[in-house]
Amino acid sequence: MGKGGMSKGSGEDGKDEGEENMAAWLLGVNTLKIQPFKLPSLGPHDVRVKMKAVGICGSDVHYLKHLRCADFIVKEPMVIGHECAGIIEQVGSEVKTLVPGDRVALEPGISCWRCNLCKEGRYNLCPEMKFFATPPIHGSLANQVVHPADLCFKLPDNVSLEEGAMCEPLSVGVHACRRANIGPETNVLVMGAGPIGLVTMLAARAFGAPKIVIVDVDDHRLSVAKDLGADEFVKVSTNIKDVDEEVVEIHKAMGAGVDVTFDCAGFNKTMSTALSATSPGGKVCLVGMGHSEMTVPLTPAAAREVDVIGIFRYKNTWPLCLEFLKSGKIDVKPLITHRFGFSQQEVEEAFETSARGGNAIKVMFNL
Amino acid sequence: MGKGGMSKGSGEDGKDEGEENMAAWLLGVNTLKIQPFKLPSLGPHDVRVKMKAVGICGSDVHYLKHLRCADFIVKEPMVIGHECAGIIEQVGSEVKTLVPGDRVALEPGISCWRCNLCKEGRYNLCPEMKFFATPPIHGSLANQVVHPADLCFKLPDNVSLEEGAMCEPLSVGVHACRRANIGPETNVLVMGAGPIGLVTMLAARAFGAPKIVIVDVDDHRLSVAKDLGADEFVKVSTNIKDVDEEVVEIHKAMGAGVDVTFDCAGFNKTMSTALSATSPGGKVCLVGMGHSEMTVPLTPAAAREVDVIGIFRYKNTWPLCLEFLKSGKIDVKPLITHRFGFSQQEVEEAFETSARGGNAIKVMFNL
Amino acid sequence: MGKGGMSKGSGEDGKDEGEENMAAWLLGVNTLKIQPFKLPSLGPHDVRVKMKAVGICGSDVHYLKHLRCADFIVKEPMVIGHECAGIIEQVGSEVKTLVPGDRVALEPGISCWRCNLCKEGRYNLCPEMKFFATPPIHGSLANQVVHPADLCFKLPDNVSLEEGAMCEPLSVGVHACRRANIGPETNVLVMGAGPIGLVTMLAARAFGAPKIVIVDVDDHRLSVAKDLGADEFVKVSTNIKDVDEEVVEIHKAMGAGVDVTFDCAGFNKTMSTALSATSPGGKVCLVGMGHSEMTVPLTPAAAREVDVIGIFRYKNTWPLCLEFLKSGKIDVKPLITHRFGFSQQEVEEAFETSARGGNAIKVMFNL
Amino acid sequence: MGKGGMSKGSGEDGKDEGEENMAAWLLGVNTLKIQPFKLPSLGPHDVRVKMKAVGICGSDVHYLKHLRCADFIVKEPMVIGHECAGIIEQVGSEVKTLVPGDRVALEPGISCWRCNLCKEGRYNLCPEMKFFATPPIHGSLANQVVHPADLCFKLPDNVSLEEGAMCEPLSVGVHACRRANIGPETNVLVMGAGPIGLVTMLAARAFGAPKIVIVDVDDHRLSVAKDLGADEFVKVSTNIKDVDEEVVEIHKAMGAGVDVTFDCAGFNKTMSTALSATSPGGKVCLVGMGHSEMTVPLTPAAAREVDVIGIFRYKNTWPLCLEFLKSGKIDVKPLITHRFGFSQQEVEEAFETSARGGNAIKVMFNL
Repeated sequence: MGKGGMSKGSGEDGKDEGEENMAAWLLGVNTLKIQPFKLPSLGPHDVRVKMKAVGICGSDVHYLKHLRCADFIVKEPMVIGHECAGIIEQVGSEVKTLVPGDRVALEPGISCWRCNLCKEGRYNLCPEMKFFATPPIHGSLANQVVHPADLCFKLPDNVSLEEGAMCEPLSVGVHACRRANIGPETNVLVMGAGPIGLVTMLAARAFGAPKIVIVDVDDHRLSVAKDLGADEFVKVSTNIKDVDEEVVEIHKAMGAGVDVTFDCAGFNKTMSTALSATSPGGKVCLVGMGHSEMTVPLTPAAAREVDVIGIFRYKNTWPLCLEFLKSGKIDVKPLITHRFGFSQQEVEEAFETSARGGNAIKVMFNL
Repeated sequence: MGKGGMSKGSGEDGKDEGEENMAAWLLGVNTLKIQPFKLPSLGPHDVRVKMKAVGICGSDVHYLKHLRCADFIVKEPMVIGHECAGIIEQVGSEVKTLVPGDRVALEPGISCWRCNLCKEGRYNLCPEMKFFATPPIHGSLANQVVHPADLCFKLPDNVSLEEGAMCEPLSVGVHACRRANIGPETNVLVMGAGPIGLVTMLAARAFGAPKIVIVDVDDHRLSVAKDLGADEFVKVSTNIKDVDEEVVEIHKAMGAGVDVTFDCAGFNKTMSTALSATSPGGKVCLVGMGHSEMTVPLTPAAAREVDVIGIFRYKNTWPLCLEFLKSGKIDVKPLITHRFGFSQQEVEEAFETSARGGNAIKVMFNL
Repeated sequence: MGKGGMSKGSGEDGKDEGEENMAAWLLGVNTLKIQPFKLPSLGPHDVRVKMKAVGICGSDVHYLKHLRCADFIVKEPMVIGHECAGIIEQVGSEVKTLVPGDRVALEPGISCWRCNLCKEGRYNLCPEMKFFATPPIHGSLANQVVHPADLCFKLPDNVSLEEGAMCEPLSVGVHACRRANIGPETNVLVMGAGPIGLVTMLAARAFGAPKIVIVDVDDHRLSVAKDLGADEFVKVSTNIKDVDEEVVEIHKAMGAGVDVTFDCAGFNKTMSTALSATSPGGKVCLVGMGHSEMTVPLTPAAAREVDVIGIFRYKNTWPLCLEFLKSGKIDVKPLITHRFGFSQQEVEEAFETSARGGNAIKVMFNL
Repeated sequence: MGKGGMSKGSGEDGKDEGEENMAAWLLGVNTLKIQPFKLPSLGPHDVRVKMKAVGICGSDVHYLKHLRCADFIVKEPMVIGHECAGIIEQVGSEVKTLVPGDRVALEPGISCWRCNLCKEGRYNLCPEMKFFATPPIHGSLANQVVHPADLCFKLPDNVSLEEGAMCEPLSVGVHACRRANIGPETNVLVMGAGPIGLVTMLAARAFGAPKIVIVDVDDHRLSVAKDLGADEFVKVSTNIKDVDEEVVEIHKAMGAGVDVTFDCAGFNKTMSTALSATSPGGKVCLVGMGHSEMTVPLTPAAAREVDVIGIFRYKNTWPLCLEFLKSGKIDVKPLITHRFGFSQQEVEEAFETSARGGNAIKVMFNL
């Protein structure tokens, strides 16, 4: 897709399901347009969902600005959005677990279930994955989508549709906590108090972490993190030379060893701090993706048997996220700072708000 | 200890056990002297061992040249050597598992058994570890040493004292294979065909790895590796720009995905290749310690959930090493390329031979 | 299905694929008839396979005699057979990994990939599993079957179709070894030297078990086990009072602790011996299913933290089985003791041979 | 030791530490006497502790009534008691972590740290274990004891000495939860609402179990369990024929699958229920020890890959217990139902109270 963009999506073949189905199409750099979106046909194991809440993710903003994210490149017009929840409109002939009217949160990725990684239970690494708004697959910022029923999770009565949409970012934190094996004996350090740092902190708390220290460069973010439940915070610089003394401050704040560090920023500085601050035998979980190539003290960490654990999306996290929300172990509502409707103007404003950052954590559409 | 060194060790208090006990003292940069070494008293759970075979490790050479290794600094004269086997001379009052005359291989590190890491079974990370020839603890290149009986492992009849001494470097490979969970489903890539690369390759084979590809910059080393059982090898450069095409060659040589890579060199180049070559969901085990700070594509690897596993020495590996040697699953004899006696002149020659590298793999003293 | 049985299968609707497809139908107690079998239509991810080698399993014989196995009851005529290999005749439109003429081994179970157990990688426990010759699903003792391509594994050139069919029973041993975490440090005891005991022994060896002791009541079976690679064997009685002294003999034969015991018989006597013989911290893996309710010394075993590991079929084992067969780490050919063609008379003789036991280990059809 | 018992302990050699050290000696069946108890000498890594709180365990009562517990037989007079906390009076020359006046909880078992099980981190299985009040080792119901410093854990300011003593029974629950891998995704069933069932329930809650159902035959115990935090309870019979319908009730109470069942009673009936109620892929953890030989449906459970996990005491649990008590995640105070002083008459009354059961959960001595 050229940077100049395309003037229209594939709306012309939009199928009429009562009223026309509209979606937010990424047509070029900084160009999002609401246009008709033809739904695929409903398979026997699929459901048709009327979207009600869709959040904006950092990757959505990145696609809008750069038409790419890591190795994924937008070459054709693509519907954006993947953090979502809605209401079942229609179910396929074989669907027994859901009925029209059910409120559901959607897991965005459809894996092949035929490769070794799927069969071994690591379906998030499936090379054939079809994932909302990862090119060339369309996303879910639309009036309706068709999706496999087993990836639509019924919301408990006390969980709202917006909270349902929040299961997607929360899943990243939950998957990270599972891979790092967080429990009631794990003192946790979180590098970065942005949206992913915050959901990871909330997840670590829900997994039982007895003490959580969070680190950021920004006072406001740290104050939000404290309000959301961090035990202690440390304000840090972006200067790599400060690592050693900041590690001392972190250890003081923790008052104990750091068992697991989540680097939710992913820069040379944060990862250097993470590797240096973590105790022998501990783990550093790399969640954020600030830098691709990194210059970090990897060898001294390896010589303390500090392992580096990678994270890619999540797998089978929705049931646990919903349990956390239902029980109140996690409250994601304070993360939703801005809300917009689904008009051309509001879509543009919403993405600008999310891109601007500032005090915006999660920007949510109500459709 | 100043670089000029000291003219004498603490030999003057050498205790007379029949004949005087002599040891190789590191007295300053490039200065090793055979001098008397007073043995500590024999505790109830200790044994006194007459040393018969002691190998030279890269760290011994590093201490000789730099009086330090990582953060360990030689400040006082220190007996060198830690890869060793010998014959029991005397046992403490509570020792029931060994008798004089038993041939034993010695595990060099004595941990505290009071800290959490010891109690959790990760005693190699014990902060109170007392380890042969890691300052300020004396080593074992001596006529005799006193050591805890539970760290002296009786050799099977068909395992020689030299092979017993080889349990120490082999243990590094065995510990790496355990941490990386090598088994009959794990295709293995080994970066570096030096002594540690070779023992790691031998260990991986003994753990059942179906296919092993080894990589080095040196033709002779690769040829040795092939003779010792590598399935395939790839000659590589030291130029970081060659990583991508070398990864292609490695994948071709493997004919399958790389499940685990052991980086037994530990340089930017080798670790970049390791991280790039390893399949989604795989592991890179960092064994070598070439560079301390590393510039590597950590984030793309983490995004494929390729974990980085650190290695520090080993724990409880001697019984398995001896089982491997006894059964013939591993043959370490071809690794012993040079032998020396325990005289001042030969000690100097031996260390020079080891330092020179070339076709020397393991240099061994016969005492 | 009444014990009198039915006089015909659903052959009348057999679809003509060149010549009529015939299969061995279980029609009633001790009643197997070769009759037409209509193939289902070929889906886009399916293949049509011409069967070439089909083995008889103990469960096939059990169904023939009792029309049931555990809770599975044969209520309608059912094609028998599930240990099989063949040649691809036709591939579905989306199949990219196989072409007609490929020789393949078939994994018999099709799971739903929509339930939690499937998503967690434990698809063998899927409650919606459709498995060859587990009622009401038809089996594979037929000229042709249609099966998902991802459950058909291409045979290496040096692996025969009969060996391909043996992947099914071998998979039980492989799955047991994986669940019990067998490796080069695991001394293994196998209770029972029948077909499952033998494949488990072969698998344990291939996983690196340094010492394997096998136990049975029958001299011939023990002699076969010894020929196939058991290090030691112990002949035992069926008298529960002999457990203690037999445990002494087993320990003497092992010359070390028993780390893992596979009970491949599953009787009170064998499980009592297994629980008593296994060392503190070890595992007993219950593979055989002789008794349903068991009277065994479970509490003393639990008080030594001897865990009891259950086994149900297998998951994702074919690639490893084929690797073992290709590399020669496992040779299953000696297990195939009898061969029959696919005629009404030979099918009857083959099942009689298998049921009679004696020196028959695996009875194989060549189609 | 004959059932008639001995008339005196070894008090005659009681060493005078200011005032004479007195202890409760088990002298014969139903015979406990407070008599002098000579302390061993203080080693460099030991501390001398003035006992302040000692609880009575079921095993103490069992020893009093039968002079044995499982295979452990009381042959010589033995001081009873092992659930304890006190105040440091004196520290050995090498002790750096504690000072006189520190309030500590004591872990009762001293392992050898020389065997493989110790080295692998499973020191609770050490065959050389020396454990308070497990013959022939003396217990801790005494004015003072000498114990290794690393087994004495400093109490947080907000944790009382009685709560410190409760770390011992709580450790059983904590160890069970660790071995069964309890977390926020684990629905838990507890069989038996006695002291061990209750601490296991409290531990499972602290490990994050989202739903806990508890089962007992006694209304009062169930009501206590509910007050202490069980989500649901089911009253059951002791009749083995009721298993099937009780499993239905348990499933109804859980409203979901049972991931882990803790059998804290250990009878045929409870274990049959546990094995039948647990979901495919789940675990049954056998904690109680009612019956030694058990008649249970082990094979059907194994065929659902329900594993049976054994428990023996605990390892390295005190720090986590103290964290739970300090943070308030666990409150053990309601379990302490009766308190006694340390006089001959009160010791007898206390043991009678504990033996009688009734509404007594934990009987505690205040010294």
